[in-house]
Amino acid sequence: MSIEKAITDMARDAKEAAKVVARLSTQKKDEALERIAQKLLDEAATIKQENEKDLEDAREKGLSEAMIDRLTVSDAVIESMAQGLRDVVRLPDPVGRITGMWLRPNGLQVGRVRIPLGVIGMIYESRPNATIDAAGLCLKAGNAAILRGGSEAFHSNAILAQIIQGALRETGIPEAAAQVVPVRDRTAVNVLLAQEGYVDLIIPRGGEGLIRFVAENSKIPVLKHYKGVCHVFVDKDADPGMAEKISYNAKVQRPGVCNAMETLLVHEAVAGSFLPQMAKRFGEAGVELRGCPKTCQIVPEAKKASEEDWSAEYLDLILAVKVVASMEEAMDHIARYGSAHTEAIVTSDYARARQFLREVDASVVLVNASTRFNDGGELGLGAEIGISTSKLHAYGPMGLEELTTTKFVVFGDGQVRT
Amino acid sequence: MSIEKAITDMARDAKEAAKVVARLSTQKKDEALERIAQKLLDEAATIKQENEKDLEDAREKGLSEAMIDRLTVSDAVIESMAQGLRDVVRLPDPVGRITGMWLRPNGLQVGRVRIPLGVIGMIYESRPNATIDAAGLCLKAGNAAILRGGSEAFHSNAILAQIIQGALRETGIPEAAAQVVPVRDRTAVNVLLAQEGYVDLIIPRGGEGLIRFVAENSKIPVLKHYKGVCHVFVDKDADPGMAEKISYNAKVQRPGVCNAMETLLVHEAVAGSFLPQMAKRFGEAGVELRGCPKTCQIVPEAKKASEEDWSAEYLDLILAVKVVASMEEAMDHIARYGSAHTEAIVTSDYARARQFLREVDASVVLVNASTRFNDGGELGLGAEIGISTSKLHAYGPMGLEELTTTKFVVFGDGQVRT
Repeated sequence: MSIEKAITDMARDAKEAAKVVARLSTQKKDEALERIAQKLLDEAATIKQENEKDLEDAREKGLSEAMIDRLTVSDAVIESMAQGLRDVVRLPDPVGRITGMWLRPNGLQVGRVRIPLGVIGMIYESRPNATIDAAGLCLKAGNAAILRGGSEAFHSNAILAQIIQGALRETGIPEAAAQVVPVRDRTAVNVLLAQEGYVDLIIPRGGEGLIRFVAENSKIPVLKHYKGVCHVFVDKDADPGMAEKISYNAKVQRPGVCNAMETLLVHEAVAGSFLPQMAKRFGEAGVELRGCPKTCQIVPEAKKASEEDWSAEYLDLILAVKVVASMEEAMDHIARYGSAHTEAIVTSDYARARQFLREVDASVVLVNASTRFNDGGELGLGAEIGISTSKLHAYGPMGLEELTTTKFVVFGDGQVRT
Repeated sequence: MSIEKAITDMARDAKEAAKVVARLSTQKKDEALERIAQKLLDEAATIKQENEKDLEDAREKGLSEAMIDRLTVSDAVIESMAQGLRDVVRLPDPVGRITGMWLRPNGLQVGRVRIPLGVIGMIYESRPNATIDAAGLCLKAGNAAILRGGSEAFHSNAILAQIIQGALRETGIPEAAAQVVPVRDRTAVNVLLAQEGYVDLIIPRGGEGLIRFVAENSKIPVLKHYKGVCHVFVDKDADPGMAEKISYNAKVQRPGVCNAMETLLVHEAVAGSFLPQMAKRFGEAGVELRGCPKTCQIVPEAKKASEEDWSAEYLDLILAVKVVASMEEAMDHIARYGSAHTEAIVTSDYARARQFLREVDASVVLVNASTRFNDGGELGLGAEIGISTSKLHAYGPMGLEELTTTKFVVFGDGQVRT
């Protein structure tokens, strides 16, 4: 069977299954999620065996240790996948929730009700756990999912798909409600991105290259962020200890993720006292500093930043540092070089805190907290399927609610228009 | 100056202006809206004079009476444009509204705040009032607007643009906050649809041809509906008088609009009593009936419907009629031939009313009310800029709220991730 036909069939089946999934009770969906969780634990040995095939391929191909690490499905990873599903079971079901209801002067009662989006295509890279996370969230939100993981996780994703579909079957839910693309060939992605008659939304997760490829080739709406060039602005009225703690956490706690700080902006009034101490701590953590001329004056060990550094997403222990004359200059810098992802200010000034929150255009804007909190779980959405930095439909972390939409329902007793 | 350069400049200026408009107080925006309204009334003579140029062109080109009627800007039309703006003044400002706020276990206070989308491109057909309506709604929601009306309304839209920009100037708002594309050439649309760096959303309004053209050529997200193939299902337990009143209203009150009924579905248990009486009333109103075989048996004057009739959007005094054996058959028919726009059931059965509301996938689903209520004003949104039949971002009539999105704001006191 051609790839084209295989993917088109999957998409059509998903669309049919979506109608069934949209009407499932919360109980039934939770039962399926719990079954998947239990099967993951029961079949841990088989999963690890299949994962080993991917790991062997990866070693043969000479993939980096970091990539092999991400690809590895250990007992701990399996337990965390199962736990993730059980966390989703505990989240409230968004489907059927009334988001508002009101009465019109003519007696019509009008309401808005949450409904699923339909069929969601996820395109992601190496970690096999994404297969389970995405399937769980899509199912709980009443959607069918088509999952396309990295080709390096082919065997792992295939066994996870078997487990998911086994659990769906046992729960009496169509297997097509969660399908893994069983084709390694990358043309499968192109074919999937052309199924606009069947697939309602595409969510890519991975490097900027993958995401640009998806956005440029998709005929289906795409929710994505390209990169996270996140800033912390240390205001002149910042508490120095707090500024240091937040800056350190934002850069060092997990430098390889999208909500890590990439550029530190420091008000000139405090740069002389703040930067030497901060540079010392960054130095101990192995962070390379690339500074503006003023920064390099204050911190001699900093390298000179080039224009490219201001828009770089290092995802590494590298930090651009700029001294600014005012919050306005900081906000202009953020507007010019930021990626609308996550922006933070450290300040004790009431008015500037309010102004920064109001005027900075980013999916998450924080006062006196680390950029690392831009995460569905951390912000209280329960879980996330990704982060959107474009404004349509969702802006910021996407949880269960962002995997739904609303329709209008109208209760009348014979009203007509005059 | 080339069309390409002219449109790109407009889009860039709009993006800059959008930053200013996003931060305007409600008071300032309302002041501008009121100024536009007053200027429309003050300059009615000039508007009619410019409109006359378009009307002369239209007569020369031999446009239909209906099109000339839509194009005509009379005193009544000017008054209704001014009134429309004053209605928007009275609507609550969505920008800055907190849609939710909660506390995390670590003490972070997390909220979601409505913010404008940015720059909205409207592409529409003949009626010049759309220029005023769209400019008013976009401004109130804090967005900049680029408006591209039909080339047949060129002079009318140009004078309206002058009036809008004069009012903006006098209010101290950048004129680029609402611009009319000053180019008749249709390539202007293609250039506009490629400004994905500056324009955040495209809303096309008009015939299916225009909308398909926009959707297929846009690099920018598009919110639209292609057509409204709306159904009324008369259940076996329908009140006959109510069913007649609703069916008549849905078809006859204004047949040329997207929320008019195009197909009537009748339960076989009541078809024999309901259809003859209904056909008589439709006959008196000049409605041509195209029926399924059973309908033609019951109503001999009905023509035989072809397969195409079931998916036709007549926008005229023509109605397809089908007798169904059950509500399930009606819902299957709607799922197959409907356009996810507006679907209504007439019934006195509690369980079937609930099931129809829950299971029918359309942007507006009604029980015992006319399909003609799918309209932002009628449903209580205050006004509408269009109707979306795709699920992402908005599903159904789009009011001020749908011209915004939300960002996350986080209030901390030094929190970091561990």
